Amino acid sequence: MKHKILLILLIFQAALSFSQFDVNYQNNKMFLQDKTHKNILIPDIPGFQILKGDFHIHTVFSDGEVWPSQRVEAAWREGLDVIAITDHIEYRPHKKHLKADHNSSYELAAKKAKEKNILLIRGAEITKNKVPPGHLNALFLSDVNAIENDDAFLSVEQAVQQGAFILWNHPGWKLQQPDTTMWWDFYSDLQEKNMLHGIEVANSNEWYPVALDWCVEKKLTVFGNSDIHVPINFRYDFSDTYNHRPMTLVFVKERSLSGIRKALFEGNTVAWFGNTLAGKEKLLKALIQESVKLHIPFTQVTKKEKILHYAELRNYSDIHFVLKDKSKKDDEIVLPPQRSIVVFFPKETTQLSYTIINAFYGSQKNIELIFKP
Amino acid sequence: MKHKILLILLIFQAALSFSQFDVNYQNNKMFLQDKTHKNILIPDIPGFQILKGDFHIHTVFSDGEVWPSQRVEAAWREGLDVIAITDHIEYRPHKKHLKADHNSSYELAAKKAKEKNILLIRGAEITKNKVPPGHLNALFLSDVNAIENDDAFLSVEQAVQQGAFILWNHPGWKLQQPDTTMWWDFYSDLQEKNMLHGIEVANSNEWYPVALDWCVEKKLTVFGNSDIHVPINFRYDFSDTYNHRPMTLVFVKERSLSGIRKALFEGNTVAWFGNTLAGKEKLLKALIQESVKLHIPFTQVTKKEKILHYAELRNYSDIHFVLKDKSKKDDEIVLPPQRSIVVFFPKETTQLSYTIINAFYGSQKNIELIFKP
Amino acid sequence: MKHKILLILLIFQAALSFSQFDVNYQNNKMFLQDKTHKNILIPDIPGFQILKGDFHIHTVFSDGEVWPSQRVEAAWREGLDVIAITDHIEYRPHKKHLKADHNSSYELAAKKAKEKNILLIRGAEITKNKVPPGHLNALFLSDVNAIENDDAFLSVEQAVQQGAFILWNHPGWKLQQPDTTMWWDFYSDLQEKNMLHGIEVANSNEWYPVALDWCVEKKLTVFGNSDIHVPINFRYDFSDTYNHRPMTLVFVKERSLSGIRKALFEGNTVAWFGNTLAGKEKLLKALIQESVKLHIPFTQVTKKEKILHYAELRNYSDIHFVLKDKSKKDDEIVLPPQRSIVVFFPKETTQLSYTIINAFYGSQKNIELIFKP
Amino acid sequence: MKHKILLILLIFQAALSFSQFDVNYQNNKMFLQDKTHKNILIPDIPGFQILKGDFHIHTVFSDGEVWPSQRVEAAWREGLDVIAITDHIEYRPHKKHLKADHNSSYELAAKKAKEKNILLIRGAEITKNKVPPGHLNALFLSDVNAIENDDAFLSVEQAVQQGAFILWNHPGWKLQQPDTTMWWDFYSDLQEKNMLHGIEVANSNEWYPVALDWCVEKKLTVFGNSDIHVPINFRYDFSDTYNHRPMTLVFVKERSLSGIRKALFEGNTVAWFGNTLAGKEKLLKALIQESVKLHIPFTQVTKKEKILHYAELRNYSDIHFVLKDKSKKDDEIVLPPQRSIVVFFPKETTQLSYTIINAFYGSQKNIELIFKP
Repeated sequence: MKHKILLILLIFQAALSFSQFDVNYQNNKMFLQDKTHKNILIPDIPGFQILKGDFHIHTVFSDGEVWPSQRVEAAWREGLDVIAITDHIEYRPHKKHLKADHNSSYELAAKKAKEKNILLIRGAEITKNKVPPGHLNALFLSDVNAIENDDAFLSVEQAVQQGAFILWNHPGWKLQQPDTTMWWDFYSDLQEKNMLHGIEVANSNEWYPVALDWCVEKKLTVFGNSDIHVPINFRYDFSDTYNHRPMTLVFVKERSLSGIRKALFEGNTVAWFGNTLAGKEKLLKALIQESVKLHIPFTQVTKKEKILHYAELRNYSDIHFVLKDKSKKDDEIVLPPQRSIVVFFPKETTQLSYTIINAFYGSQKNIELIFKP
Repeated sequence: MKHKILLILLIFQAALSFSQFDVNYQNNKMFLQDKTHKNILIPDIPGFQILKGDFHIHTVFSDGEVWPSQRVEAAWREGLDVIAITDHIEYRPHKKHLKADHNSSYELAAKKAKEKNILLIRGAEITKNKVPPGHLNALFLSDVNAIENDDAFLSVEQAVQQGAFILWNHPGWKLQQPDTTMWWDFYSDLQEKNMLHGIEVANSNEWYPVALDWCVEKKLTVFGNSDIHVPINFRYDFSDTYNHRPMTLVFVKERSLSGIRKALFEGNTVAWFGNTLAGKEKLLKALIQESVKLHIPFTQVTKKEKILHYAELRNYSDIHFVLKDKSKKDDEIVLPPQRSIVVFFPKETTQLSYTIINAFYGSQKNIELIFKP
Repeated sequence: MKHKILLILLIFQAALSFSQFDVNYQNNKMFLQDKTHKNILIPDIPGFQILKGDFHIHTVFSDGEVWPSQRVEAAWREGLDVIAITDHIEYRPHKKHLKADHNSSYELAAKKAKEKNILLIRGAEITKNKVPPGHLNALFLSDVNAIENDDAFLSVEQAVQQGAFILWNHPGWKLQQPDTTMWWDFYSDLQEKNMLHGIEVANSNEWYPVALDWCVEKKLTVFGNSDIHVPINFRYDFSDTYNHRPMTLVFVKERSLSGIRKALFEGNTVAWFGNTLAGKEKLLKALIQESVKLHIPFTQVTKKEKILHYAELRNYSDIHFVLKDKSKKDDEIVLPPQRSIVVFFPKETTQLSYTIINAFYGSQKNIELIFKP
Repeated sequence: MKHKILLILLIFQAALSFSQFDVNYQNNKMFLQDKTHKNILIPDIPGFQILKGDFHIHTVFSDGEVWPSQRVEAAWREGLDVIAITDHIEYRPHKKHLKADHNSSYELAAKKAKEKNILLIRGAEITKNKVPPGHLNALFLSDVNAIENDDAFLSVEQAVQQGAFILWNHPGWKLQQPDTTMWWDFYSDLQEKNMLHGIEVANSNEWYPVALDWCVEKKLTVFGNSDIHVPINFRYDFSDTYNHRPMTLVFVKERSLSGIRKALFEGNTVAWFGNTLAGKEKLLKALIQESVKLHIPFTQVTKKEKILHYAELRNYSDIHFVLKDKSKKDDEIVLPPQRSIVVFFPKETTQLSYTIINAFYGSQKNIELIFKP
């Protein structure tokens, strides 16, 4: 008798099997999204661990469209280590429906951050219409309310008194600097008083090459940030390394807020946006040297009675690289994430010299890479 | 002189070309997401236009994570025609930070809806912990505040006085009905008083076959809804028709709120969730007949001296279909969106009879499809 | 006792379930690839059915890398209706290992073509190094062996005596015409004798705008072909409509070899390669008019107290379109397959005029499209 | 004057820009496919380098559909290190059109292999209809012609005299062993005479758990091979690690043919097919230990006043893993390639013990993995 029931159960199960399978498919997808996160492959360099950060993010508490905790969730899914919540102080179009002060968005994100092991920075965007002063992010604040001030200078001063790191946002944003991306005395004044520490060389889908030159000349820290307002994957795609969220790579001694703070003040960053890298020469070069390596050393093969000399380069990272052989008028060599390329060269070649045409340490200066046999 | 400047400009442009290309790539991606939207291919049936709707959606104004306007934006991107904002009345965990009444989320979404040509329904979820009454959506309200009431029955009554359509949500949700999906006298009472009009046979990643039987027996309207709380593409993927957002397909005479209201009260819907369809036999069958057609009629070919008889079925829709030839013990025939399949049959075949094993008009009843030469 | 065995079987089944699921996943994928094929969405135009063809294909019997039957299989998977096998007559690098004449590759493909309902054309590529004569495809041959001749002119003459359609291949191929794509008297001579009927305006990843002008001026038929040598999906991707296999769209009265033959001799084709279309104005325009339609007619919405006028265009095809509003200095409007776009316009607008910048009916002439309220 | 020409050139360039972009897109895609190849991420284990191989491949010279050189090209694109060409000796349906002996396919592939740095093994499939003897691969032959023999035993004997490694193919293939996968005296005889060295535990989309038990008991080498006949990407997808080509992972001291030969004779392999791994316990466990590591050690977080204990596991490989916590009745934990998962556990937990349910060292035995704080 018992086995009859079993049989009936089996038949019933069979009858429902397809729709169950379907639910399983969805459950698996959701499980993966909810329980696991992507790792971004960027090899560390000697002496430093490389963290992935985004230091410019909005929520419903200014003019963003998502609740603060979702910013942490999204960062975790994409594989970031650190984010800053930087709602506008002066622009809060949803305030009619909100009961909040300038610290609320940070506080609402903080619980989730702890749970998800995301390092969370209390920040704010000091938001003035004209450049200068334009928009400035204050990072590592202890109380955002205290820095609200009609006078941008006083606002920054207050922030600095709290130990903040000050960042000039999107210096070439067309709404503010429509013609050219210009430097102003205001920023020199700030820097003289140690009240300006970094610049966004890239913001959202824009980049400002001249701002990289300023960072190098004036010893300011380089940033690439998303300035995201909508849900993150309405703009970017975690699985498309060519359309990833703009990031600031931070070279730290220790994965902690103090480790990041130190790295930012010391200028140890590289901006990564689209397929482009921008930063100070030394760190950027080290990063690339760990990412692109000779996998098959100089070797040769005979093809139709001709001896061909070649080597194989391997990209160990999730960064796209575009190389140009300095000895050739050739086309560019595209080396996507986690792929290898075979390069051929003349017999007498003693070294391979490449310009990395998507890695800038100045508006007109590209990293060069040399491989020897 | 002039041409010298031009040359210099050209050279400058060349030097920046790669990073510009990169920005173009991102700009194109963003342009497409912001300016264009997906069309969902579902052929209309004679006498009816088929609209795509989701009648169960949350925002930050209850326990959701996004601002109301983003729900409209997301619906537009995915190709929906109609959504209902249905925040919980009784469960508002963010209320400490909000200044709002129960109509606010609808009102904030309404502007965007007009702009995006999305039909927007003012709704609410009457939310009681135990089943019955459980959770009930009231759709087409004129004032949500007026229906707040500790007594679910009175709350529904108020809603019905406003002309609302009442929907029993996720009847088999494990938190509320852990063992089996059971019907209760409470719902019979509601229906007797014309205060219950539909049931979710599918909600999020769950589906409740027995609820489909109830809908058929009791003449209630079938729904499949997302019950989304997080940003929509954290759960679903617009480009994966197998993991699309659960939808209620509404068979209307006219694309308007009144057209939808009429269709819902008349029971003219089909639920589409994962790769599964569930609905009343007549509409569901008509939908499938327009979606899957004989593209190459009964024909024959000689292969290794044997005559093979075959036909080609074509799927004109974005719905996955899984067919089973009733005359065979064969495996299932999977016919994904916008693909064709060749089916072979014995010489003496006069018609092809298929069970559509992922299209249900009862918990144990599947739509059948017949093709003749 | 029996039910004990059953239980044991169940347990055993459970233990193996995961790996079985895995096999199912692969089986499903393989089933789909083997049993179903993609439909390419291109709406027919009044009076004509549009077939998808590729009239330039190689196999191992010349310098290709796959067996002839695989060319049919690949065409079927991608959703083509018609292909021509066109192995080189004069270049057969594998011949040391082959026992075959010039008809063998067609004959080996013919069985599969019948089975798969693919229309198969017996063709050959008359292959001379220099231009002229360069490479010429002869289509609709009855015996390829008969046309082998050191003199290209005599070879073509023989082909034409068999009723062949003659096509000049890749007129701008850099190996043959390194500097500019030039016309030669040889081709005028051929055409005068009715021995030249079409030109490839696109071949593989190249396109030759001037060849389109020749086709229009000289009333020659327009082709876009793959000239594929390797397995098809080593070069192209069926699921990426932007990187699909180059095709010649053939506007026929009847899906048959004679229907195609008639259409080719009458010049009723459009070339579709990458995201670009090229053809005679009338057919090309008709194709686009059926593909891109006004989905929401001229309407208006109020946004922040301003009245906005807009309409929605829908792309009903698998073709990418790039539009430019003739009244604006704006950026291009990208309208990908099966998506819709909302366009805004000033109040006084009486019609929308677009240049389709990726649809050419001359090297410098683009199709224009007008929509009225 | 000069600048006028320049201007004209610029305008001309602009007019063509879109279609050029399109060609660039295709050229980039083709460049990437032709010039770069995928790396498969599988970390080496202490003492061994892990090579990726496929030891069962057909070409047009038996019943395959592609030319031998394309097998090398495909292997290179996917990131394999080693392949064996193993055409059937007794089944050559295309022979009517071929002039070739049994060594031809290897020889035609050999040039390409040198160029692409793919290690190429001369092999053959001894093909008898019934089991036993069934189908046996002979690898590392010096002359395939010499081993052709109606008597399978004599054929194997000849192969072994050439130093060959002998592999029993697809022991559970339904056409040969329809009911159960059975062992036969014939194979015991072979092994006694040192004429049988390995078994395919997986072939194409099938796997035979009992064959893994045989390999362990009888000290035979484990294989997972594709047995591919069609172009490789008609069946498998390089970019979908869940539907990758079946592979035999070979644990070598040196990347060379002799290194591989040694490893095969010593049994140092693991089969990887779909999302499943099968092999000897020691190597398989070492492989998994290098692939899945504790990224965040045992730590804790406070959530709603409860202390949660958790750790993060990271998958450093391109292999899917499915884990089951031995202390729970929970669902499976899916850990896809290059993703991380957070696992929660009770306070008193001193170690995390997982069964890897898709990694088998016996038909009923799964690898176990332990992580300590």
